[in-house]
Amino acid sequence: MEYAVRGKVVIAADRIHDELTNPQSQPHHLRKKHPFSHIVYTNIGNPHSVGQSPITWPRQVLALADLPNDVGIDHPKIHELFPKDAIERARYIKESALEGYGTGAYSHSQGPKLFRQEICDFIEKRDGLDAGSCNPDCIFMTNGASSAIEMILTALIADTSCGVMIPIPQYPIYSATIDLLGGKKVGYYLNEEKGWDMNTEELERSLADAKAQGIVVNSFVLINPGNPTGQVLSRQAIKRIVKFCAKHRLVLLADEVYQENVYDENAEFYSCKRAAVETGLVKEDALELISFHSTSKGLLGECGRRGGYMELEGVDRDVRDQLYKMASAGLCSNIPGQIMTSLMVRGPKRGDPSYASYQREKKHVFDGLKRRAKIASDGFNAIPGFSCQEAQGAMYCFPAVSLPDAAIRLAQENGMAPDTMYAVSLLEKTGICVVPASGFGQEKGRFGFRTTFLPSEDEMVRVVDAVKRHHEDFCKQFSS
Amino acid sequence: MEYAVRGKVVIAADRIHDELTNPQSQPHHLRKKHPFSHIVYTNIGNPHSVGQSPITWPRQVLALADLPNDVGIDHPKIHELFPKDAIERARYIKESALEGYGTGAYSHSQGPKLFRQEICDFIEKRDGLDAGSCNPDCIFMTNGASSAIEMILTALIADTSCGVMIPIPQYPIYSATIDLLGGKKVGYYLNEEKGWDMNTEELERSLADAKAQGIVVNSFVLINPGNPTGQVLSRQAIKRIVKFCAKHRLVLLADEVYQENVYDENAEFYSCKRAAVETGLVKEDALELISFHSTSKGLLGECGRRGGYMELEGVDRDVRDQLYKMASAGLCSNIPGQIMTSLMVRGPKRGDPSYASYQREKKHVFDGLKRRAKIASDGFNAIPGFSCQEAQGAMYCFPAVSLPDAAIRLAQENGMAPDTMYAVSLLEKTGICVVPASGFGQEKGRFGFRTTFLPSEDEMVRVVDAVKRHHEDFCKQFSS
Repeated sequence: MEYAVRGKVVIAADRIHDELTNPQSQPHHLRKKHPFSHIVYTNIGNPHSVGQSPITWPRQVLALADLPNDVGIDHPKIHELFPKDAIERARYIKESALEGYGTGAYSHSQGPKLFRQEICDFIEKRDGLDAGSCNPDCIFMTNGASSAIEMILTALIADTSCGVMIPIPQYPIYSATIDLLGGKKVGYYLNEEKGWDMNTEELERSLADAKAQGIVVNSFVLINPGNPTGQVLSRQAIKRIVKFCAKHRLVLLADEVYQENVYDENAEFYSCKRAAVETGLVKEDALELISFHSTSKGLLGECGRRGGYMELEGVDRDVRDQLYKMASAGLCSNIPGQIMTSLMVRGPKRGDPSYASYQREKKHVFDGLKRRAKIASDGFNAIPGFSCQEAQGAMYCFPAVSLPDAAIRLAQENGMAPDTMYAVSLLEKTGICVVPASGFGQEKGRFGFRTTFLPSEDEMVRVVDAVKRHHEDFCKQFSS
Repeated sequence: MEYAVRGKVVIAADRIHDELTNPQSQPHHLRKKHPFSHIVYTNIGNPHSVGQSPITWPRQVLALADLPNDVGIDHPKIHELFPKDAIERARYIKESALEGYGTGAYSHSQGPKLFRQEICDFIEKRDGLDAGSCNPDCIFMTNGASSAIEMILTALIADTSCGVMIPIPQYPIYSATIDLLGGKKVGYYLNEEKGWDMNTEELERSLADAKAQGIVVNSFVLINPGNPTGQVLSRQAIKRIVKFCAKHRLVLLADEVYQENVYDENAEFYSCKRAAVETGLVKEDALELISFHSTSKGLLGECGRRGGYMELEGVDRDVRDQLYKMASAGLCSNIPGQIMTSLMVRGPKRGDPSYASYQREKKHVFDGLKRRAKIASDGFNAIPGFSCQEAQGAMYCFPAVSLPDAAIRLAQENGMAPDTMYAVSLLEKTGICVVPASGFGQEKGRFGFRTTFLPSEDEMVRVVDAVKRHHEDFCKQFSS
C-alpha cells in the first residue's frame, strides 16, 4: 500500500521544514543549509494550511453550538458578539437537529435526520429535481468523503477476485484502499490530449481485459471534477458513464467533492445523480449509484472537520441495511463535521444578517482560486518541456514533464520512479513540495507531478518561476 | 455482521419514540397506544443523550479555537465572556499545536505532534513512568477509539486464517469487524461467578483449541474496565495477560476507554502499558501492545466529538510505517476531536481560573455515576431470577436472567434468541430499551441483557422497579 500524497517526498519536506523552523533541534555539525527560507506545500488540497481564511459565519454557528447554553446562546452578552442568524441557527441545531442533546452525544449512525433532509433539499435544488427525488434514509453522513469511500470499498471487496474500475491517473485513496483490502485495481485511461476526457471504447477495453483475466468487476470510480487532473466532464460524458455502468451492472462511485470548484466559464458541474435521472435510469431502477461530497474542498475548505456524506441511489434495501450496520460499528461521524456539512448545504438566506458577508467571503475565495488556476496551468504550459492541460476545476495541475534520458536511467538504476527523483530534486533546490505523478498512475513513459494552486497568487507566480528555473538546471545537469 | 448496540431492539425503540413524539406522522387507525410516555434509552453509553451535562471549560476552549481570531480570541469583548485560561489555551492550540492553521486544516496523519506529546505526558504521569517512556511517534489520534480498532483489525486480518482472541462477552465492534473482514473470532470466557475475572487456563484452552482448528491467532483483545461486564481487573490479572500475550507472540489490543470510570473503592485502573513496563516486557522488547483511549467515556462523555487515540508499544517500525500509510488514506482524524483529547489529557492546572469549577463539574459526574452503578447492580441483583455482578467500573450492568422454559421454547420456534424476545417484551411493556445479552456473546444456556446506568438517579430507580415488575409478569405469562 502506497500513499503518495503523504509519501516519501512529503516526509522529506517535513524534515526540512523542521530544520528550517527549529534549527536548534539538530546538532550543529548536522545542520544543513537550504537555498530557501520555507517549504511551499503544494502536495495536498489543504487550503487553510496555505493561507485561505475560514468563512466566518459557519465558524460562528459551530462555536455557538458547542457552548453550553448558559455560557452560549442564552447568555445576554452573546448578542453583542454574534449575529442573530448565527445564534438562531445554533439554537435550531442544538434543539431540533440534535434533539436537545447538543454536540457531545452520538447521533443516529447515518447522522441526524434533519441534517440528512437538508442534504436532500440541497441535491434536489442543485440538480433541478422534483421534491422527494432524494430520500434522507439514503444519506450517510461520514468523517469526510475518505471514510465513506473506505466503507464502500470494504463492502464491495469481498475477496481477491473483486475488481474496481479506477481512472488512470486517480486519487490514491482508491488504489491504496483496494490494495489494502486485497481487491483488484482495473485501470481505465483518461485521454490527456483531449483534456483528460473519457471515452466509452477505453472503458469497454478495460472491462473486457479484466474479465478475460477472471476478475469480477463490480464497481466503477468516477472523479469529477478530476483529481489529480482538474478536468470537468461534459453532460454527454457523464451520461455515457452512467449508461456504461448500468449496462454492465457496475456500482458507480461518483467522487464529486470538487463540485463547487469549476473555474472554466464554458464548463459546468453535472452530477451523476442528475444524469441518472435524466437518462431514465433512476425510473427504470437500472443503476446503483453512490455519490460522495465533503466540506474539505469547495469554498469552505474545512478539511479539519472531516465532514462529508454519501447518497445512495438505486441501492438495494438489504445492501443499505448492511451499510447501516457498518456505520453503526463506528457509532456515528463526528458532530462538528455534520454541522459544517449542514451549513455548507444550507447557508444564510437572502435577507439574513450574515448573507452579504457570507457571499462576499465565498466569492473572494472562488475568484482567487480561479485566478491561480490560470497562473498555474498557463505558467506550467509555457515551460519548455512541460505540457499542462487547463485546470477547469478542482485544485490541481498535473503537468507532463519531459525528462532527460540520463535522468531516467539514473533513477531506474537507483530503483526509483524518475519523477520521484525529479520531485526530490525540486524540493531540495527550491523548497517546493509536489507529488510525483507516478503516485497517481499514468501511461508508461509519461513523467510529471501534481501540484495544488492553493498558495497565494504571489507565491504561485514564484512557484511557476522556480519550477521553470529548476527544470532548466535539471536538464542541463543531465545533458552534460 | 451484526451490531446489537444499534440492532433490532433499538430500531423498534426508535420507531416507538417517533410514534410518541410525533403521533401525527402515523395515520389515525395505525396509531398505537403505549403504556409509557417516553423511551428510556439504556442501550448505548451515550451520556449526554440521557441528561449528563458537558463539562464547561473544554467546550469554551473548543468554541474559541473554532472562531476566526477577529471574532474570537482577539476580540475585545471576548474577555467579558470567557475565562482567561480558556482564551489562552485556545490561543496555544491555534498558534502552536495547529501551527497557525487553525481547526480547518488537515493535521499530520497521526495528529499534531504537540497534542501527541501531551498524550505521552498524560500516560507517563498516570502510570508513574519515567519521562520518555512514551514516544509521540507511537501515538495515533483517531476518530474515537472505534476507528482505531477498525484500523488495527484491518491491518491484522490479512486472510481468512487469521484469528483474534476476544472475550465472551465482548463489545460488538470486535465481533462485527472481524466478521466483516473475514477473520476468525477466537472466544475466551470470562468467569461470571468470580466477578467476570480472567484465568490463564481458559486463555490457554481457547488458544490451543483455535490452533488445533488451523487458525493463525495473532492478537488478543482485552477490555478493561469491562464492557459489557463492568469488572475492573487486578494488577495480578493484567500482569498474567501481558505475559500470556508475550509468551504466545500475540499483539495485545488493550481497550481502556473506561479507565476513568472506576467506582469500587477497592479497585483501581492498572494499564497494560504499566504492566508491560513493570513485568520487564518492555525492556526485553517482548510484547507488542496497542492501547486505545477515547473522549467518549470517562467524565467528559464527549461521544459526538469522535476523539481518541491509540499508543503503540513494542510495535516494529515497519508495521508503524504501514499504519501511518493507512492513517494517511483518511488524511487525519477530526480536529475538534483531537482538541477534546488534548483537553482531556491536560485540563486546567491548580491556580488557573477554571480549575475549581472544572474539578467540581467532573466530581459531580463521577459521584452520580458511582451512585447509579450501585442502584443498578444492587437493584437488579435483588430481583428474584436475576443475578448481577457488581459494576466496579465502566457504564454497564450485565445481569443474567432466568427465563421460563416455555418462553425459551417459543423464542426458538420463532428463530429468535430468547433474550431478544425478552428485551422486545421489556421495551413494549415499559419503554426501556436494553440490548439482549446474546448480542455480546455468553455461555450457552445463559440469558440476560446489558443496560447502562446513565439515566438520572430517579429514572434508574424507576428502571429497576419496572424491570422487576415486567419480569414477574413475563414469568407469570409463561407459567400459565
